[in-house]
Amino acid sequence: MIPRYSRPDMVAIWEPESKFQIWFEIEAHATDALAELGVVPKEAAAAIWAKGKFDVERIDEIEREVKHDVIAFLTNVAENVGEEARFMHQGMTSSDVLDTCLAVQLTRATDILLDDMDKLLAAIKTRAYEHKLTPTIGRSHGIHGEPVTFGMKLAQAYAEFERNRERLVLARKEIATCAISGAVGTFANIDPKVEAHVAEKMGLETEPVSTQVIPRDRHAQYFATLAVIASSVERLAVEIRHLQRTEVLEAEEYFSPGQKGSSAMPHKRNPILTENLTGLARMVRSYALPAMENVALWHERDISHSSVERMIGPDATITLDFALARLTGVVEKLLIYPERMQKNLDRMGGLVHSQRVLLALTQAGISREDSYRIVQRNAMKVWESDGEVALLDLLKADADVTAKLSEEALEESFNLDYHFKHIDTIFTRVFGE
Amino acid sequence: MIPRYSRPDMVAIWEPESKFQIWFEIEAHATDALAELGVVPKEAAAAIWAKGKFDVERIDEIEREVKHDVIAFLTNVAENVGEEARFMHQGMTSSDVLDTCLAVQLTRATDILLDDMDKLLAAIKTRAYEHKLTPTIGRSHGIHGEPVTFGMKLAQAYAEFERNRERLVLARKEIATCAISGAVGTFANIDPKVEAHVAEKMGLETEPVSTQVIPRDRHAQYFATLAVIASSVERLAVEIRHLQRTEVLEAEEYFSPGQKGSSAMPHKRNPILTENLTGLARMVRSYALPAMENVALWHERDISHSSVERMIGPDATITLDFALARLTGVVEKLLIYPERMQKNLDRMGGLVHSQRVLLALTQAGISREDSYRIVQRNAMKVWESDGEVALLDLLKADADVTAKLSEEALEESFNLDYHFKHIDTIFTRVFGE
Amino acid sequence: MIPRYSRPDMVAIWEPESKFQIWFEIEAHATDALAELGVVPKEAAAAIWAKGKFDVERIDEIEREVKHDVIAFLTNVAENVGEEARFMHQGMTSSDVLDTCLAVQLTRATDILLDDMDKLLAAIKTRAYEHKLTPTIGRSHGIHGEPVTFGMKLAQAYAEFERNRERLVLARKEIATCAISGAVGTFANIDPKVEAHVAEKMGLETEPVSTQVIPRDRHAQYFATLAVIASSVERLAVEIRHLQRTEVLEAEEYFSPGQKGSSAMPHKRNPILTENLTGLARMVRSYALPAMENVALWHERDISHSSVERMIGPDATITLDFALARLTGVVEKLLIYPERMQKNLDRMGGLVHSQRVLLALTQAGISREDSYRIVQRNAMKVWESDGEVALLDLLKADADVTAKLSEEALEESFNLDYHFKHIDTIFTRVFGE
Amino acid sequence: MIPRYSRPDMVAIWEPESKFQIWFEIEAHATDALAELGVVPKEAAAAIWAKGKFDVERIDEIEREVKHDVIAFLTNVAENVGEEARFMHQGMTSSDVLDTCLAVQLTRATDILLDDMDKLLAAIKTRAYEHKLTPTIGRSHGIHGEPVTFGMKLAQAYAEFERNRERLVLARKEIATCAISGAVGTFANIDPKVEAHVAEKMGLETEPVSTQVIPRDRHAQYFATLAVIASSVERLAVEIRHLQRTEVLEAEEYFSPGQKGSSAMPHKRNPILTENLTGLARMVRSYALPAMENVALWHERDISHSSVERMIGPDATITLDFALARLTGVVEKLLIYPERMQKNLDRMGGLVHSQRVLLALTQAGISREDSYRIVQRNAMKVWESDGEVALLDLLKADADVTAKLSEEALEESFNLDYHFKHIDTIFTRVFGE
Repeated sequence: MIPRYSRPDMVAIWEPESKFQIWFEIEAHATDALAELGVVPKEAAAAIWAKGKFDVERIDEIEREVKHDVIAFLTNVAENVGEEARFMHQGMTSSDVLDTCLAVQLTRATDILLDDMDKLLAAIKTRAYEHKLTPTIGRSHGIHGEPVTFGMKLAQAYAEFERNRERLVLARKEIATCAISGAVGTFANIDPKVEAHVAEKMGLETEPVSTQVIPRDRHAQYFATLAVIASSVERLAVEIRHLQRTEVLEAEEYFSPGQKGSSAMPHKRNPILTENLTGLARMVRSYALPAMENVALWHERDISHSSVERMIGPDATITLDFALARLTGVVEKLLIYPERMQKNLDRMGGLVHSQRVLLALTQAGISREDSYRIVQRNAMKVWESDGEVALLDLLKADADVTAKLSEEALEESFNLDYHFKHIDTIFTRVFGE
Repeated sequence: MIPRYSRPDMVAIWEPESKFQIWFEIEAHATDALAELGVVPKEAAAAIWAKGKFDVERIDEIEREVKHDVIAFLTNVAENVGEEARFMHQGMTSSDVLDTCLAVQLTRATDILLDDMDKLLAAIKTRAYEHKLTPTIGRSHGIHGEPVTFGMKLAQAYAEFERNRERLVLARKEIATCAISGAVGTFANIDPKVEAHVAEKMGLETEPVSTQVIPRDRHAQYFATLAVIASSVERLAVEIRHLQRTEVLEAEEYFSPGQKGSSAMPHKRNPILTENLTGLARMVRSYALPAMENVALWHERDISHSSVERMIGPDATITLDFALARLTGVVEKLLIYPERMQKNLDRMGGLVHSQRVLLALTQAGISREDSYRIVQRNAMKVWESDGEVALLDLLKADADVTAKLSEEALEESFNLDYHFKHIDTIFTRVFGE
Repeated sequence: MIPRYSRPDMVAIWEPESKFQIWFEIEAHATDALAELGVVPKEAAAAIWAKGKFDVERIDEIEREVKHDVIAFLTNVAENVGEEARFMHQGMTSSDVLDTCLAVQLTRATDILLDDMDKLLAAIKTRAYEHKLTPTIGRSHGIHGEPVTFGMKLAQAYAEFERNRERLVLARKEIATCAISGAVGTFANIDPKVEAHVAEKMGLETEPVSTQVIPRDRHAQYFATLAVIASSVERLAVEIRHLQRTEVLEAEEYFSPGQKGSSAMPHKRNPILTENLTGLARMVRSYALPAMENVALWHERDISHSSVERMIGPDATITLDFALARLTGVVEKLLIYPERMQKNLDRMGGLVHSQRVLLALTQAGISREDSYRIVQRNAMKVWESDGEVALLDLLKADADVTAKLSEEALEESFNLDYHFKHIDTIFTRVFGE
Repeated sequence: MIPRYSRPDMVAIWEPESKFQIWFEIEAHATDALAELGVVPKEAAAAIWAKGKFDVERIDEIEREVKHDVIAFLTNVAENVGEEARFMHQGMTSSDVLDTCLAVQLTRATDILLDDMDKLLAAIKTRAYEHKLTPTIGRSHGIHGEPVTFGMKLAQAYAEFERNRERLVLARKEIATCAISGAVGTFANIDPKVEAHVAEKMGLETEPVSTQVIPRDRHAQYFATLAVIASSVERLAVEIRHLQRTEVLEAEEYFSPGQKGSSAMPHKRNPILTENLTGLARMVRSYALPAMENVALWHERDISHSSVERMIGPDATITLDFALARLTGVVEKLLIYPERMQKNLDRMGGLVHSQRVLLALTQAGISREDSYRIVQRNAMKVWESDGEVALLDLLKADADVTAKLSEEALEESFNLDYHFKHIDTIFTRVFGE
């Protein structure tokens, strides 16, 4: 995590203050449940809520001596609560606190990410409808294919991020579990009712079987999902970078008045936000791997996952939060140039309509192979002229074509609207309206 | 994919014969729909079903010339169907066939994996109930913790693989979509009804918006899910490897009479199957990465994903299928040694009961810190004796202990059943019965 | 490994026949050394060379029974050699054979890769000199920067692959070691002189300390190096894909007469070879991970690395060999369009010269900040005209400019040769001549 | 980077203060060279050295407005230097400063890592000689194999880290280059002599051909090397974790008096440092991937690598520095238990000597197959007795054995020293003395 690529709400989740506050709530709720079960005095539970507080620096100080963070925390809370603190943490193990806390942090982080996603989806949708029928060239292999609309490009992005939103909801469920099951997870020293109570209070489900730790396949699936989402961020970022290329220039990242593109070339407007997103996506993607390597803990648990999660917990969520918000800004303010799109569409001398001509010839009774050859020989001339010669003109002069297709029929093959007749269908599929 | 780690049913899905058969069905169903729409003659559709066949070698031969697999396939089919073949593939693009075919192959592969998973779950469940109350030591950090049962270990594995099964069902949905949307996905030259018809016939959903290709975030999520499952395979494999260690020897992979463990040390029984599974898990995990890098295709599509999928499509599914089946066999035939488990449980002089003593002291009114110190000073003596001195004996002779706890109370702290009182709860949570 | 992306010489290295031949040579050389030491009869060593042969199918048959590949091999050889075969493999362990064989296979594979690299370097160099002074626009962020030459682009690629060649030479050294150290590597039952003899005969160094296995950090470094090389393949492939974009079209992959670009759009010439290389690069990169996870074997060895290496050994080397050869072909036959490069250079109305103007103004005594503003205000007009207005004309009409720079000085700022005055220096640095 | 896993010297390299100081030196040295060439006044160069200073907060403030870090820095320096600052950065581009600065930071970081490595090597060597002849069981597959010495285990680790040290020296060379080549790297506006001067002053080599950026294959190889080193850290960490298992207990991490192993189980001494190292290794390994994905920048450069490097530059070097130092501490203070090693050696009833017996029988004229069967039938009895029955006793009572081997010869087969006769050879190979 570095400040440049961080936003405060997400950062706050991972600060020591937040972590200890969650620890405190888990311990206090657990003591409530223990009191309800008659295991500890109700006064103790009340005292913990009433007098329980902690101080991050004091905890750090104690930890330097005892080298154990949960003991340090409990010791500090006991300094404030007094005698009744001894009823806290009864039958629990450190992991009960740590893993349940991580679940709370990750669910809160995910709620922010879901909110980010909603904003991104809203931004994409707005621009998609704005440009629902703005013609632009569709490209396969970087080569002009057939016409699409700019709105359709964005509809694709919308559908992709909606899938990602659904994946994120599922990923949230994966990690939203609470384990208060004691050493090695047998509940030997703590009633499962305590777990149920804490789970409910912290907004989590109970973990069916924990072994001191919550199983890490959950976290692996979670971080893998973030990695997939990051890959989609990369896809849209790369699309914008392509569109902003000097030769293409169909869209540009918003360029604020005070901003300088380069210390050396003042005319340059570089797609630095989307390039940055490409890099950030690489980072979020990379965090999936150590999360997967964390799954195979030894026996009931080892603690090798801990250092990994101390790093990727904040790093992955903070970076993805930042990336989604940045991408939303890019989409909202994207400068879109329909005239340039039309210019690019026209620059190939009508070659993009060759598929339609091919079909028209086939339907007029020429074999697929022959049609292909006829179109190809004319298309190659256009191609070699670098768009100076128009395909329509060549076809009108090709006897094999005119033998089968009237001038009117040929011209109809070059009508853009033909390509957009199902845009409504696609929009309905994607936006449901 | 290498034969040693492959099973025939999964391999068959990825053979050229299967692929071309699926291509044929997609093309033939599409022609049916086109005929229904009146775009092509019904006779043509009928002729394709009647005379349509292909020959893998002939397709390869044609492809060497035209360097395009779908054209090669269509040409070969046309050689058999004759004149009416020109109505095939109308308005479609190669990716319509390729991507829909991949969806069919991956869903079929997933069905095998789901079946593998069911068998694995059944095997784990059987062994879990067999050893529901077999005491064994729970270990954290590789160090003896508190008692668990061997059945509980397996219940954890069951719960983990049940989650994996659910993930796999979701992953199957991710990739079970059909796209027949023509060049750049606009349906300009093909009615969306064709897609709907082919989707239904091939057991898929329609892709809401494709751009010549089905978006690759779907495949990324799919292969990431396989990678998580592989990580769980690794977890159980590593557990068994640990249990088979000479010093632990609580379980062993089945050792068949003809098998030799080592060319040099005839007494050795090595956990080679689970070691092998550990390696295979690494492979399946690694395939998630290129799948994620495939997401950011250029514009409407580029073909960089294709070579990746030609490799990881078979490699990931074949390897995971083999791994799940091998793991099932290992679990079914696992040699489990309850006596040795008990011996290991006892070898620490009762140290594993120290947590219970700690709680008993706390509940008897000694502060948590003092209780900890009392238990620790006795425990350290046991530890240093390498299990020769028994903790119970030391505690009975410790005045600070006997001042608060009767001999009976102390002995109760060493009762194993105490730890297993919630095993039923856990089994009900996991197995639902 | 799939045939489509494989070349026969590299495939041959990984075939069972080759592997067993290497095993035989290792065993026979070891027996020679043992005979020399007087441990076994010289006649036995001679008999092994004279009568030693093996049959792949028979070995497979035996392995199905004994489930151990080296024992199966030895048994089969013994079937041919007879009685004296019992002197073979004395004091050795299977890993001595397996790991030394892998070293031989990887060094042979690397020799092919080095040869591939030489051919690639030669191809790049030829084209670099051909276009040493062919002007083309340099692009940062996909945006026109300042002029470069096409030869300079290729010089960069040459330097990068020369570094990769050096890395590959180092990587070859990493894995070119022989271990014949017996069980757990102590040489208890075999004299280190045997290892030295086999090493020399097989073209390897002796492994200073093996522990039954050759340590896997060697292989991790090896496969990581292949992954870096693959990333460079991707870089050059991506460059060509960019150059072939419809709007750029400064270069194209060679398009053979019989080849069809698309079943639907006959005019399309898609950069499918370089797209394919992009995908293959992802695969080779992914293999580095399991190789790194293989390092932490348990104690003296476990066999988890084996399944990984059975897969990535062939897959990584075969894929990279294919990729390097394909890239070489692409470079050799690349269609390069200098006219189009010039056209692209000109299309921005001279904006690419703005940096020179900026410097000229600064050197004429205007502050850097003021110079920047002057250039920027003119550059923005050119930019907004989409290259219709020429920067030179605007500058000639800007009083703040003409107050400091003569028309001649201004025109000099637009001279392309200015940019190429150090191309010789760069070529000398890169090609050393 | 998180404070818990960071050491101050390495952290300092990555602080803004250090970065800007390096930027300043690069700019000032470049101005010196420009002055020497007569491009700028010598007084300007002198003034920059004399009055040049910067303030991190002020730079941040400016950057918030201009959104460009190098311009912000230059502006702030100019605020201090005054008029003559306009001669600074002449003909240079931001990347000249940024990339050369990164080279300086990475080389300094590598110097710390090399120092870490020296300390680790020294620690391993000391302990290796201490236990050069301490017998311990060698384990393959986690199963007892044949005897080794503890010193030999450490000699292996030493050799592995010495290889890693060499790799690190090579990796340092990879990234120790300077580029001052101006926009798109043509030296159009700056003489290559400036680059040569700055390179020499900053302790770097000149980059043969840069394209505004230093090519990222260098950094990919660098971070891949760190990833391999991390994998070796993991190997040694995992070895220690295995040795500290309750059932093995041949070594333990040092346990300080104030430290508590667990809040619940006071007797536990957990290998938390090496578990932590296992997790940190996963992190360092994961950073290799985005570094490799950074290689394929678009055309002369894009800036997607930047965010990645802002993160992994510090994260990888800080984490590896911490890990190497922690591992050194673990090795230096490792509690090693020779008695327990002997006890473990003995616990298998002498099975570990079966290979020697096998050889003795073969050498006494029994066929390999028969010898194998004889040893195996006795070994299995020992195995099944869980070490209660001694192999030597059984062999003495086996007529097939005694027919060929005298009691004395048999006993000689059980002599540990036999296994250690080449330890000197191995130590000489590894430590060269």
